Amino acid sequence: MVDGAAKVTGKGIYTDDIRLPNMLFCKILRSTYPHAKILRLDTSRAETIPGVIAAITGKEVSEKYGILPLGHDETALAVDKVRYVGEGVVAVAGTSEEILDEALNVIEVVYEPLPSYLEARVSMDNPAVLIHEDKANNIERDYHHHFGNVEEGFAHADYVRSDSFYCPRVTHAAMEPHSTVAHFDETGKLTIWSSTQTPYYLHRTLARVLGMPMARIRVVKPLVGGGFGGKDEPLCHEICAAALARKAGRPVRLTVNREEVFYIHRGRPDQYVDIKTGVTKDGKITAVECKTIQDGGAFCSYGIVTILYSGALLGAIYDIRNMKYDGYRVLTNKPVCGAMRGHGTVNVRFAFESQLDIIAHELGIDPADIRLRNLLQPNTRTVNDLRVTSYGYPECIQKVMEHSGWREKKGKLPYGKGIGIAGSHYVSGAANSIIRSKMPHSNVMLKIDMDAGATIFTGTAEIGQGSDTIQVQIVAEELGLTVDRVRIVSADSDLTPMDLGSYSSRVTFMAGNACLQAAREMKTKVNKAAAELLQIPQEQLLNRENFIYDRNNVDHHLSFEEAIVHAIGTQGGTLITKGAYTPPREAQGGKFHGAGVGPGVAYSYSAQTAEVTIDTETGVVTVDRIVAAHDCGRALNPLTVEGQIEGSVSMGLGQALSEQVIFDQGLVMNPGLLEYKTPGILDSPKIESIIVESADSEGPYGAKEAGEGSLAAVIPAVGNAIFDAIGVRITELPFSPEKILKALKEKQAKKK
Amino acid sequence: MVDGAAKVTGKGIYTDDIRLPNMLFCKILRSTYPHAKILRLDTSRAETIPGVIAAITGKEVSEKYGILPLGHDETALAVDKVRYVGEGVVAVAGTSEEILDEALNVIEVVYEPLPSYLEARVSMDNPAVLIHEDKANNIERDYHHHFGNVEEGFAHADYVRSDSFYCPRVTHAAMEPHSTVAHFDETGKLTIWSSTQTPYYLHRTLARVLGMPMARIRVVKPLVGGGFGGKDEPLCHEICAAALARKAGRPVRLTVNREEVFYIHRGRPDQYVDIKTGVTKDGKITAVECKTIQDGGAFCSYGIVTILYSGALLGAIYDIRNMKYDGYRVLTNKPVCGAMRGHGTVNVRFAFESQLDIIAHELGIDPADIRLRNLLQPNTRTVNDLRVTSYGYPECIQKVMEHSGWREKKGKLPYGKGIGIAGSHYVSGAANSIIRSKMPHSNVMLKIDMDAGATIFTGTAEIGQGSDTIQVQIVAEELGLTVDRVRIVSADSDLTPMDLGSYSSRVTFMAGNACLQAAREMKTKVNKAAAELLQIPQEQLLNRENFIYDRNNVDHHLSFEEAIVHAIGTQGGTLITKGAYTPPREAQGGKFHGAGVGPGVAYSYSAQTAEVTIDTETGVVTVDRIVAAHDCGRALNPLTVEGQIEGSVSMGLGQALSEQVIFDQGLVMNPGLLEYKTPGILDSPKIESIIVESADSEGPYGAKEAGEGSLAAVIPAVGNAIFDAIGVRITELPFSPEKILKALKEKQAKKK
Repeated sequence: MVDGAAKVTGKGIYTDDIRLPNMLFCKILRSTYPHAKILRLDTSRAETIPGVIAAITGKEVSEKYGILPLGHDETALAVDKVRYVGEGVVAVAGTSEEILDEALNVIEVVYEPLPSYLEARVSMDNPAVLIHEDKANNIERDYHHHFGNVEEGFAHADYVRSDSFYCPRVTHAAMEPHSTVAHFDETGKLTIWSSTQTPYYLHRTLARVLGMPMARIRVVKPLVGGGFGGKDEPLCHEICAAALARKAGRPVRLTVNREEVFYIHRGRPDQYVDIKTGVTKDGKITAVECKTIQDGGAFCSYGIVTILYSGALLGAIYDIRNMKYDGYRVLTNKPVCGAMRGHGTVNVRFAFESQLDIIAHELGIDPADIRLRNLLQPNTRTVNDLRVTSYGYPECIQKVMEHSGWREKKGKLPYGKGIGIAGSHYVSGAANSIIRSKMPHSNVMLKIDMDAGATIFTGTAEIGQGSDTIQVQIVAEELGLTVDRVRIVSADSDLTPMDLGSYSSRVTFMAGNACLQAAREMKTKVNKAAAELLQIPQEQLLNRENFIYDRNNVDHHLSFEEAIVHAIGTQGGTLITKGAYTPPREAQGGKFHGAGVGPGVAYSYSAQTAEVTIDTETGVVTVDRIVAAHDCGRALNPLTVEGQIEGSVSMGLGQALSEQVIFDQGLVMNPGLLEYKTPGILDSPKIESIIVESADSEGPYGAKEAGEGSLAAVIPAVGNAIFDAIGVRITELPFSPEKILKALKEKQAKKK
Repeated sequence: MVDGAAKVTGKGIYTDDIRLPNMLFCKILRSTYPHAKILRLDTSRAETIPGVIAAITGKEVSEKYGILPLGHDETALAVDKVRYVGEGVVAVAGTSEEILDEALNVIEVVYEPLPSYLEARVSMDNPAVLIHEDKANNIERDYHHHFGNVEEGFAHADYVRSDSFYCPRVTHAAMEPHSTVAHFDETGKLTIWSSTQTPYYLHRTLARVLGMPMARIRVVKPLVGGGFGGKDEPLCHEICAAALARKAGRPVRLTVNREEVFYIHRGRPDQYVDIKTGVTKDGKITAVECKTIQDGGAFCSYGIVTILYSGALLGAIYDIRNMKYDGYRVLTNKPVCGAMRGHGTVNVRFAFESQLDIIAHELGIDPADIRLRNLLQPNTRTVNDLRVTSYGYPECIQKVMEHSGWREKKGKLPYGKGIGIAGSHYVSGAANSIIRSKMPHSNVMLKIDMDAGATIFTGTAEIGQGSDTIQVQIVAEELGLTVDRVRIVSADSDLTPMDLGSYSSRVTFMAGNACLQAAREMKTKVNKAAAELLQIPQEQLLNRENFIYDRNNVDHHLSFEEAIVHAIGTQGGTLITKGAYTPPREAQGGKFHGAGVGPGVAYSYSAQTAEVTIDTETGVVTVDRIVAAHDCGRALNPLTVEGQIEGSVSMGLGQALSEQVIFDQGLVMNPGLLEYKTPGILDSPKIESIIVESADSEGPYGAKEAGEGSLAAVIPAVGNAIFDAIGVRITELPFSPEKILKALKEKQAKKK
């Protein structure tokens, strides 16, 4: 990792590490009501406290925004009414955090409570008051898709089964809480440093809300301590920091506390999944029908994508020719859900892979075999028009079966021990942009000057996943440079070309392709000069480790520096190239790209086995071993791919076993890492990662997704292993001791 | 000035403002002998002082450097012997300045004094000991040029006159003392921030001396508080800071004190000028012979250029067809002379313009008229092969005559009051590079992204002269943007393309041309998109104030943003162009470009009148008024041109009236701004600037030099005014009260 040394030595600069002269602190007064009119709001007493420099209310930042064009329903602070506990009402800047605590205490807000809707099915059921006036029945968006003919499919089935699943809300719990520093310089130009996955979304949103030209705003992304989707949209505190910096005439830093992170949220929604699947007696799927309801919280955020993905991605993993999907994204008076690792797919995948396990069991088919009987072919289009270019799923299944000893273990372990299998998949970048539809999704600029070092200028947001490292590697590989000769400047809007950001596992794929293009063009320039100096044809050159060799005679060579100086002298100065990536038209899909957001450019695949031990006295599930195979196309940096697999598995295990945001009247009851029960490294089982390389035709060197896809498989794999261990099926997450004990009790009761 | 607000509010960051965690201070122990062997050097006691972290001696940084390829005779610290008082011997890094003072006190150095040479004519006269073994007679370099036929020229003269002049050493006295911060990051990469005019020279020198690849060194130039030539070469403290940061494993900041600035020096040499000029009876110059000796101090520095320029530039201002030049650059045991505003030309110009005044007086010709009788033609080549493309000198003379009321005043003012006139000129960038001869001298990169703001990446060094502003203006002008939409990143080697630096008045001319090229190419891209959207031909577009109009119908227009988004979408992503400037082959000269350093690409011209009042009781010369006309080709920013004229005049007045570095046995006796007598704003007469625009064919929009050329005229103008006022001729600078009184006394004695 190119930023590894800075991180492990503690020298790296995260947003909260930034210190500017005269910098103010900032705190936000948040709603204590889930749904209420603001009758009166008075900050005057607070503003008289010495050290309080400025306060803003919703009226001062009333321009609506959101993930344009998906939604534009948010304001940086509540205007007229609050829609969830924790929504920002007033933001105050002052000289110390203690002073701000005092200031928040004396701000007067008079609320008139409104009926609040804290559960999706209640909220959408003829509500007396709408959360947003323009959203009938508190439904943000519903999709009703029908591909093939499910009635016919079910008619051809030998066995049809319906099951219901429920997944409570989970959140990202990134190590770094959100932080933003905003500074207006002497010329009135805004520079904002923020812990964000999407600097360029933030850029346009700030311009919109602050009423400034984008060219007068500079967005810089320092080191980010994890995002997982929680930082991939402009958030209210970022706008508040900027607006306060403008009002106060001084820099403002706003780092939220851990409790606030749970209200900023944007995590995975509480979700009901009803699924009905028909199969032939040998296990071939004939039809799938899925109805799902997501509790998206009080605003749109990425909800339209979440509910789209839940349906759209049903079809890229198995060969399902008849498919019906009804998805409802529902507004409630709870913190806003958004994107979270495995966006949209995780809960539906839990349901689907669990039901497939049930079906296999009912039909007496091995759960691995039933999956192998429903495979797609690579280079195909699914029934809902997803373009599958590479498909390593079969190999993933084979690999985890071999590696785990599946055939020896499945159904053969002693009571209380079990093994389960499941699959998952994910998009490798969204095929359609939601920023400016015609612009490339990734752009890079490459410079080589007389120092013979390459500088990559890229808009991509390194958030810990290693995207800076991958881009450096690609350029180093192409040019034959050691990685220490390649520098990267990422996500500084003054300096770097636009990139959509770090979400939907797009960066290696898209920015990687852009880097490849820029580097190859650069290599042509450098090697033209090298060929002139060595007096051999360009095709005969070999670039390696800062030297350029004659392939036919390695004693005949020159240094990269020599080639560069000659190239600069003969090719009009400093060498500059650019690269860009736009997904091909064919990947953008026809039938399924509602809301301007299409499915992926390519798809990754995962298969996992989980081995568990159940303590039937306590109900505690211990995961002993995970074998995870992931088809990432080509592993450009195997260590980081393994890291991503392990991270996804670990996060999935959190959702499987312990995590859940618990509410009481809209108030989060467990807003801390301890109470929320994010698993730590000591909670982790042995995770064995297997990299499967399917060499995607569209990816750089064949690479595709690695950062999210593995997450979804682990939850059903554990659920299926629990079933194998003790014969009970848990359909509601997490697989807590209480649920295990309850299920065991019910099973016992049934037997009796 | 784009950096004006940051400066006047005190918010701008100069090198000494930089704070890094764990940063150390640094001090240098300097020689107390002008010339001595180092017999013993022991830092061990100093290194035991708590808080002293590292010390280095010359042996640890023994790689020689200099202004390659001119000289490579320096080491960062003395090795084996010291050559001047103030030369660095040991550099120590520690946690406080007080601790370092203590450390320097206990470093043991045993010297064996050698004969020292403190005067150029003595030093070159068969010296017993050489200052550098390879420099016979302590002569660094001598030039002997003969163009035309001076014997013949003198034979045709009606009047021939020889005079001798002497100019003592002067120094830049920039407001900001030199400062450097060096930091090795966790990966071993060096970043150095330095108050320098030539970041890219520093870059290659650090690589050489530290033995590192250039690609592992990043050179950044923060705000610089003036250079005037004193910061236009790599200096020993910059290397010491880097070497100590490496040795200490911690960042090091080294800001020298004012006294040290006088030893770092690199200013204008002490110089003897013997000049002989022949003229016809109507004042046409028939021949000029000049012999000059410069005391360059102990190392080469830019000396070879200084002594070359002294001769080469004799011939670009007047039409002199026969010219002989003998120039000697002599080594002495004094601090090193280098480049200073008006590099090489000032002292010779003082001599020449004074002598011309004498000749005019002797022949009864008006001093303005004698100048007008010896003019060149534009688009000519001088006898020594200088290519003169534009020549506003005649207009400068006319303008100052008119504006000052010359005809009414010259010879007609009461005793004690006088008016004088003189001319000067200067190169507009050196035609030959001394860095890598085939590479362009300036390079810029231009980026426009979806924010529709332009970012200029340029290697140029803004040192207070306004080069950032000019480049921003050029790009804004070409693209039709307001200047607040144009950002500039200058002199950060990781980010910016190479530029030779801020010296020889080259930046507006060369980087300006590079910007123009990049901007015009960019405009083509933007306007291609605009033409598509407006559906009119590109030629019909008008770019103004962030909009693009149909020239024929200004209601038909679009915003710059709209054009950019379309261009990015249709032209392969973020818009990137580059520009470069290499002086044309024809400008590089044939006969006169010794040492790889040619004369200018173009030449600026100045004429000035000075009006003085002499207090004949005290000898005090008061300059009442300066009228300064300067031919800068085209004033791209008239305010900064006027600022440069005023600054040059003010600096010239310092040399004319008060400044002089005074030595006693190699020790500077007046190493402070008060003692050195740099004039302040209260000492300034009224300076009336007149901009003359000759529209140079090679300059950007016709622009050429503005920053230095005005300096040289003011000294002889004042000298000539003194003669007009009281009839005495002072041939040695400064025109101090003592010299005035002495001359008056001698005149009186002669009369008697």
